[in-house]
Amino acid sequence: MTVEEKIRASFARQTFMTTIAATMSSVGRGSVEIRFPFSHKLTQQNGYIHAGVITSIMDSACGYAALSLAPEDADVLSVEFKVNLLSPAIGDSFVTRAHVKRSGKTLAVCAADAFAIQRGNEKLIATMLATMIHVAPAK
Amino acid sequence: MTVEEKIRASFARQTFMTTIAATMSSVGRGSVEIRFPFSHKLTQQNGYIHAGVITSIMDSACGYAALSLAPEDADVLSVEFKVNLLSPAIGDSFVTRAHVKRSGKTLAVCAADAFAIQRGNEKLIATMLATMIHVAPAK
Amino acid sequence: MTVEEKIRASFARQTFMTTIAATMSSVGRGSVEIRFPFSHKLTQQNGYIHAGVITSIMDSACGYAALSLAPEDADVLSVEFKVNLLSPAIGDSFVTRAHVKRSGKTLAVCAADAFAIQRGNEKLIATMLATMIHVAPAK
Amino acid sequence: MTVEEKIRASFARQTFMTTIAATMSSVGRGSVEIRFPFSHKLTQQNGYIHAGVITSIMDSACGYAALSLAPEDADVLSVEFKVNLLSPAIGDSFVTRAHVKRSGKTLAVCAADAFAIQRGNEKLIATMLATMIHVAPAK
Repeated sequence: MTVEEKIRASFARQTFMTTIAATMSSVGRGSVEIRFPFSHKLTQQNGYIHAGVITSIMDSACGYAALSLAPEDADVLSVEFKVNLLSPAIGDSFVTRAHVKRSGKTLAVCAADAFAIQRGNEKLIATMLATMIHVAPAK
Repeated sequence: MTVEEKIRASFARQTFMTTIAATMSSVGRGSVEIRFPFSHKLTQQNGYIHAGVITSIMDSACGYAALSLAPEDADVLSVEFKVNLLSPAIGDSFVTRAHVKRSGKTLAVCAADAFAIQRGNEKLIATMLATMIHVAPAK
Repeated sequence: MTVEEKIRASFARQTFMTTIAATMSSVGRGSVEIRFPFSHKLTQQNGYIHAGVITSIMDSACGYAALSLAPEDADVLSVEFKVNLLSPAIGDSFVTRAHVKRSGKTLAVCAADAFAIQRGNEKLIATMLATMIHVAPAK
Repeated sequence: MTVEEKIRASFARQTFMTTIAATMSSVGRGSVEIRFPFSHKLTQQNGYIHAGVITSIMDSACGYAALSLAPEDADVLSVEFKVNLLSPAIGDSFVTRAHVKRSGKTLAVCAADAFAIQRGNEKLIATMLATMIHVAPAK
């Protein structure tokens, strides 16, 4: 199983990503891109996508970016993340791009930007700085 | 409309909270409690609730705690938050309790703890420190 | 050497704490208190204490709170922290109180509040949420 | 007074920057660079520069990057920041580069990276994601 296959298999087990119809549009060495379409089921009080949903795809993207550089038999869990919401999450669809800033023996630090896509134009709506930990895979 | 009614009406418009079957179990002056049940539709790769879902209820709870102390005609939006994941989100249901640390003219700083409930016992699983901003209500 | 002695010896080696005239006023199991006096050498453009100085004592306090619960032979390093500045750092002196929210095998999560003291009254000026890591002591 | 002159005048009033011998090596539209030399007076228990000192220059750099894009009569204060420490702060000198990710009417979101310089080589040691607020200048 290649690293990309391992990542895609894990992503497929994240049922919450299926619930929000997210797809992993790109996997590289230390970088991951995830997309999902607008849905009224995912909004907050003003009809924007809930910040927690945007956070979810940034968190998954950071985790899989970390996993792409982790030791072969490791799984990755989120230690913590910080998110700044920069603009209302209004769009036809959304994309997040995460990359690893530093991959250590135990921890990885990752950054992600999230964009709303409207009529083909991307607008930065949120940014994440996250810490991930390499753990033995859950049995 | 009382402050609690304003908060419950706004919460009812957060369709994502309905999607995860979350309920607002308590509203006070500067504090809010939100609960939701375990669902397989909300999990990550190991079957735990996705960190983004836990973040979502902490974010909503922090926002409404801030709103409970905000100027009468204001709405509240999330500026940023930081979350530490402390234990796997395994449980029958989950509760988060948020309170306002400081409510200023423009900004409010809030903290939330999230707990997993299993056979009636609560276990701390995550903690948030968040900044909210008072804004004119969306038209 | 008791845990408190180990902590006080390490604190004494933090020359930056000496530079800002900080003292460790209390050490407990999972909690630490550090104080320092106002000095014009530590200010930002308005004459308040620089946010980075307040952060420094919160970081040291969180680190030593974590060390108080760490394995006997471990040292502690900061992985990351997030600070909210709540009020201008104006006062005769300043105190921070840190406590451990969760001490795990590898990581500890700590929180700290910082207060300005003026004519004997404490005012909350900043709050930190931090992640610390247990490491083998530096040779 | 140009924006750069306003920024350099404010930086000159930050006595803590003088205390750590920091200099502002570059100011642009939305970006600032600050440097300081190693000093034993600024270290933690292992002889590395204290994380709070590194944070201080990243905070000042983020604040002045925000100020470079702020309304003409505004001052800037730190709302909050999050820092990841990536490598021990060991070096002959240190440089941080900050840039604005988004400058709004009230808030600005900035990012900074800090590097240790040893024999001319830069190594990434820390990264910050920060929120700044535009305020009326202190009288």
